[in-house]
Amino acid sequence: MSEEPRALEPLLSPFRSRVEQALSRYLPDPATSDSPRLAEAMRYAALNGGKRIRPMLVYAACRLAGGDLERADVAAVAVESVHAYSLVHDDLPAMDDDDLRRGQPTCHRAFDEATAILAGDTLHTLAFDLLARAGDYSDAARVAMVRVLGRAAGVTGMAAGQMLDMAAHGRLQDITALERMHYLKTGRLITASLLLGYQAADRPDPELEQALIAFGDAIGLAFQIQDDILDVTADTDQLGKPSRSDEKHGKSTFPALLGLEASRQRAQALCDQARAALDGYGEAARPLQQLADFIVQRTH
Amino acid sequence: MSEEPRALEPLLSPFRSRVEQALSRYLPDPATSDSPRLAEAMRYAALNGGKRIRPMLVYAACRLAGGDLERADVAAVAVESVHAYSLVHDDLPAMDDDDLRRGQPTCHRAFDEATAILAGDTLHTLAFDLLARAGDYSDAARVAMVRVLGRAAGVTGMAAGQMLDMAAHGRLQDITALERMHYLKTGRLITASLLLGYQAADRPDPELEQALIAFGDAIGLAFQIQDDILDVTADTDQLGKPSRSDEKHGKSTFPALLGLEASRQRAQALCDQARAALDGYGEAARPLQQLADFIVQRTH
Repeated sequence: MSEEPRALEPLLSPFRSRVEQALSRYLPDPATSDSPRLAEAMRYAALNGGKRIRPMLVYAACRLAGGDLERADVAAVAVESVHAYSLVHDDLPAMDDDDLRRGQPTCHRAFDEATAILAGDTLHTLAFDLLARAGDYSDAARVAMVRVLGRAAGVTGMAAGQMLDMAAHGRLQDITALERMHYLKTGRLITASLLLGYQAADRPDPELEQALIAFGDAIGLAFQIQDDILDVTADTDQLGKPSRSDEKHGKSTFPALLGLEASRQRAQALCDQARAALDGYGEAARPLQQLADFIVQRTH
Repeated sequence: MSEEPRALEPLLSPFRSRVEQALSRYLPDPATSDSPRLAEAMRYAALNGGKRIRPMLVYAACRLAGGDLERADVAAVAVESVHAYSLVHDDLPAMDDDDLRRGQPTCHRAFDEATAILAGDTLHTLAFDLLARAGDYSDAARVAMVRVLGRAAGVTGMAAGQMLDMAAHGRLQDITALERMHYLKTGRLITASLLLGYQAADRPDPELEQALIAFGDAIGLAFQIQDDILDVTADTDQLGKPSRSDEKHGKSTFPALLGLEASRQRAQALCDQARAALDGYGEAARPLQQLADFIVQRTH
């Protein structure tokens, strides 16, 4: 399932190999950990071949803001650690009860539930610990990054979105409530990824910051619409997780509320809107614009 | 069960009422939350009448370092949020599977498992978010506090300790392994509480910092020995949770390895050692020394 049906554009591939190296470097080493099994579970959860969209956003935003890619490594690992923690917890039997993730057994299947809970917890802590400790950032940048990640991850963001998602099982939602849920669950962390890259560069430019927020909010929603579309149209092999799981869980989706064709049009319109937010930045914005294309054109 | 068999010394009681107010202030308000139920579960888990030893350590250390108590509020809430998150997750069916905590249903019993997992997660995020965002701290102090809390909570601290604790079920351990497990699981966050208070004061004094570490490491271990003693000697009503649960879970304990009387002597010796670490600070150190006494003399 690691095959990439639509290859990432050449401009993005250096970011992708970079994040794999950075993750491997900053995740704990089982050989020197007090609990080798816990460190192994963390690495299993974080190194199992995700699309790495969030860290790619960090790198691309850092470069657009004038920073070296090296400056973005820690921020990229931090946001991917939070994402990985959320997947491990969301997959638990008490939550979405999923057995497969990216074509592999979910963390609680490969290890056990208690270890998965703790691996999620330690990936969560690691994100904040790294932002405060690792890399070459000013204190002001570190504080800004912890704020951005904290607001995006907690009760004002991702976790609240997951709570609303679970509460909505089997209930009809209007499109406004659905968009709010996804904004919290997915959108805030996507926009946060861009802001983390921007702050990692440490070159204040309020206009660019606003453009990145506009770009992020648009692709965040486009990403979720495409996720819902793929859940209906792709098969389990392509997705690396069971397809039609939204239907199985009785979840409201964009295709269910808008229809498939209108959902596709909406995703494309958001992609265009995101690209336009960065139009003033010329060639330098191309990697981010390619990421926007990738998000609505991906097939898994 | 809210009765206090041995009252906290008068020097400490102002800290205790202060932390209840600060927690209530900084925990999310269900009325303005995207997920009122999640905010309620966070408040339930954090406001159910704990001993508040960690925040009291924050306040006492901040004052000893020359800071106003007000400066310590956010740090106190942060460390108690991490503590509360760890209790919620430790109580889950996949972990220690406890139904009672402080005489009340555990969070997953009062709500449900998924909500408890997310409430733990959001209390965890809140701690770092507050350290970066709230209160009146310099960026340098915020970064130092996030580092201290991150190291104490994650794979290099509390969560690794919980992992080792679970892995040890039913196995004999030598005293060195038992102490290491408790140092990670409990001791690091206790010492971190003192360092957070010290950093909240923002008056650098390396000698005091070292004394606080020595004090914290000693009372952290004393705290756990006393916990093990109480599990054997107290009844369920006193503890607010099932007594003899260590035995039930087949856990190694200090009384099992050392005997009850030797365990008591060890706890008292650590208390004396902790008091001695602060002897040079006269009257200003008395609240912390009283906390050390409380830790080994408490009956629940």
